[in-house]
Amino acid sequence: MKPAVVLLSGGLDSATVLAMAAADGYACYALSFDYGQRHRRELQSAAKLAKHPAVRRHVILKLDLQQFGGSALTGDIQVPKDRAPEAISRDIPVTYVPARNTIFLSCALGWAEVLDADDIYLGVNALDYSGYPDCRPEFIAAFEKLAALATKAGVADHRTIKLRTPLIEMRKANIIRAGLQLGVDYASTFSCYDPPDDAHSCGRCDACKLRLEAFAQVGVADPIAYAPVGVDGA
Amino acid sequence: MKPAVVLLSGGLDSATVLAMAAADGYACYALSFDYGQRHRRELQSAAKLAKHPAVRRHVILKLDLQQFGGSALTGDIQVPKDRAPEAISRDIPVTYVPARNTIFLSCALGWAEVLDADDIYLGVNALDYSGYPDCRPEFIAAFEKLAALATKAGVADHRTIKLRTPLIEMRKANIIRAGLQLGVDYASTFSCYDPPDDAHSCGRCDACKLRLEAFAQVGVADPIAYAPVGVDGA
Repeated sequence: MKPAVVLLSGGLDSATVLAMAAADGYACYALSFDYGQRHRRELQSAAKLAKHPAVRRHVILKLDLQQFGGSALTGDIQVPKDRAPEAISRDIPVTYVPARNTIFLSCALGWAEVLDADDIYLGVNALDYSGYPDCRPEFIAAFEKLAALATKAGVADHRTIKLRTPLIEMRKANIIRAGLQLGVDYASTFSCYDPPDDAHSCGRCDACKLRLEAFAQVGVADPIAYAPVGVDGA
Repeated sequence: MKPAVVLLSGGLDSATVLAMAAADGYACYALSFDYGQRHRRELQSAAKLAKHPAVRRHVILKLDLQQFGGSALTGDIQVPKDRAPEAISRDIPVTYVPARNTIFLSCALGWAEVLDADDIYLGVNALDYSGYPDCRPEFIAAFEKLAALATKAGVADHRTIKLRTPLIEMRKANIIRAGLQLGVDYASTFSCYDPPDDAHSCGRCDACKLRLEAFAQVGVADPIAYAPVGVDGA
């Protein structure tokens, strides 16, 4: 079985991508980051999801991006709540973490090189998303070009390390449909940016809104627990 | 004063680049990495060098690349010793750390974005170097392109974050000459990949060889201490 690195945040998208990589027949090396995120709770979900039989190893890399701050997810800025779905993708919101996907992909690239893996899977999505620049196809293409020049694998061994982004042009409802067919246990996932506690999602941040909207479109109940109305961590 | 992020390993090159950024009039934000390197001793030097009056803040980011391994600097592989200078740049050696500069630059990019800094200084050198792919001009150009697509700064604010690589086409002897003119205290730097102890450099690894050769060319004694012949950490 060919190895692949899979970026695994513990969210709905990365859980689906992991199932897709497994279905594609890869031996999966799951990579998560403990980066000082407000929603560190997602790492419990990543650990659960990494029990998937296709996962050979799960690494949670610590990297304290709170030292830089500059984001609602890693600093003192408040997470926006109750924004209308159509407003979410319009501008880059304060939950954007500067260069986060570049950092995560760089680490994935290093691991891929050590593993002799030619594939890195990641669950970026450029349709039902928060407007982050580092989730777009242009970014992915530029990173692939960089990877070829940055590594011994690319320069000396003429290997091409590819970024696999099966969700990038999918609507979130279709991502859920695809995941359900592959047996993804969405009860083990966690998407909330600002959970009031480990057992609940807020239901009001952009990530919760996009998720709830997508489950509603599929016509399936979201299996995770949300805080009662009027209760949140803000 | 405009802010700039300066990658500061604690070695000869990054010490010189810091002095150059300071001479260029920047408020410097120095960034070092505690990445599980065998020569972690370099961080003591980075901390000393960061006392430069132009340095506003010094961050040492912890990121355990030993979890991936795959390099003589972060794993069980032995550091090559006593290689002839002309052999050093020929192939990519086992001291190459997969994707290291991509990882370091990604983090620098995130910090630059938070600081509203348009410049990242780094001491890569593509002449008297170890043949690492991520020290070459092609890599630097590809990273700049990526940075423009990866960040809010590039996409929404149309800012261009530039990589400043003043050493990239310089011979190491000229780097030392330039640094001496700028008052760099090379006694505070550390280059050895495999130091026998905190007070000595091995004198036999590629990094020591390139450094000693360059000081000899300049006709100045290298002010750091080397292990007596026959003593090393191997």
